[in-house]
Amino acid sequence: MSELRLSPIERLVKALRRLPGIGEKTATRLAYFLLAAPRSVAEELGQAISRLLEEVVLCEECFNLTERSPCKICGDPSRASGELCVVEEPSDLASIEKAGVFRGRYHVLGGTLAPLEGIGPEDLRIAPLLERIRRDVVKEVILATNPSPEGEATALFVAEQLRALKVPVTRIGYGMPVGGDLEYVDAVTVRKSLENRRQFSI
Amino acid sequence: MSELRLSPIERLVKALRRLPGIGEKTATRLAYFLLAAPRSVAEELGQAISRLLEEVVLCEECFNLTERSPCKICGDPSRASGELCVVEEPSDLASIEKAGVFRGRYHVLGGTLAPLEGIGPEDLRIAPLLERIRRDVVKEVILATNPSPEGEATALFVAEQLRALKVPVTRIGYGMPVGGDLEYVDAVTVRKSLENRRQFSI
Repeated sequence: MSELRLSPIERLVKALRRLPGIGEKTATRLAYFLLAAPRSVAEELGQAISRLLEEVVLCEECFNLTERSPCKICGDPSRASGELCVVEEPSDLASIEKAGVFRGRYHVLGGTLAPLEGIGPEDLRIAPLLERIRRDVVKEVILATNPSPEGEATALFVAEQLRALKVPVTRIGYGMPVGGDLEYVDAVTVRKSLENRRQFSI
Repeated sequence: MSELRLSPIERLVKALRRLPGIGEKTATRLAYFLLAAPRSVAEELGQAISRLLEEVVLCEECFNLTERSPCKICGDPSRASGELCVVEEPSDLASIEKAGVFRGRYHVLGGTLAPLEGIGPEDLRIAPLLERIRRDVVKEVILATNPSPEGEATALFVAEQLRALKVPVTRIGYGMPVGGDLEYVDAVTVRKSLENRRQFSI
């Protein structure tokens, strides 16, 4: 069926089905919900999605998603504590911010090492991390990649890269369930894992 | 937190949370997915939602959702068989169309009777249904409301209203699981329930 011949409802169902975890039945249910709900529900959702890509950019310092670069955290002098928290994704950063316990700055790697998928060190923001540590006053690097095999391997690799820079490196640990994901864990667990961080040994 | 101070991501999460079955974690996951996915995914979804309300109207004949009134089905002379299928919602009509076995026309009631919620006969399109049957050549009215208590009660009420018009009234039956919903049932079950329709007795 050509794109032009799809009805507005079919077009929406098709677009919704590209989202993770949404099949045809859920997509159909959501489409009819939007038609039956107050006008503002669909209007606000359509606008929020359309404006998302226009308004969100990467922070040049930490590579977090932000409305302007440098982001609020990198531009906040009260957060220049010298603690630098290295995470995989912006969603992990958001999860740590929500816990409200960390007052330093972040560095978003943009993923984990995955040699089988062809993702090597040059695909992550490791070089900008080293450059940042050489340039700024960094008292401690907290490796907050996920406690998954990929996250552990990435933490190990980053720690090895940092050895020459003589900066103390710690790893979040106690509190995170093994195999868990920072993005989905509750705020208390995130707080515990930050409080109980330990010296990273390689 | 005021609407103006929400970030684009927070605004999207808030808008997504208004959808049925989507909580904060799913909404957050979808928002970050849209940021990481190819641009076209978010663009097409945003457009499909924004255009949905502009482009979809109610058919003046059958009250189905359509791009222009009368809808394709009401405007198709080959479907003037005299069979009129009465359904609760446009999604039920779509489900019967998908089964591909019914070649007559439809009438969308717009819900079911629900006295406890204050939904009476005047809130459904029952008067336009009677008017349509008086005006057009209708050989059979198929009551295809859902086999739920509300759907059965509505079918009974409509059948009573139709008695004076001396038009044969049938009820879809065999094949539909009791307590099920036309919107979610498979095409074979829908086809069976149409083939095995029975005389409606009140």
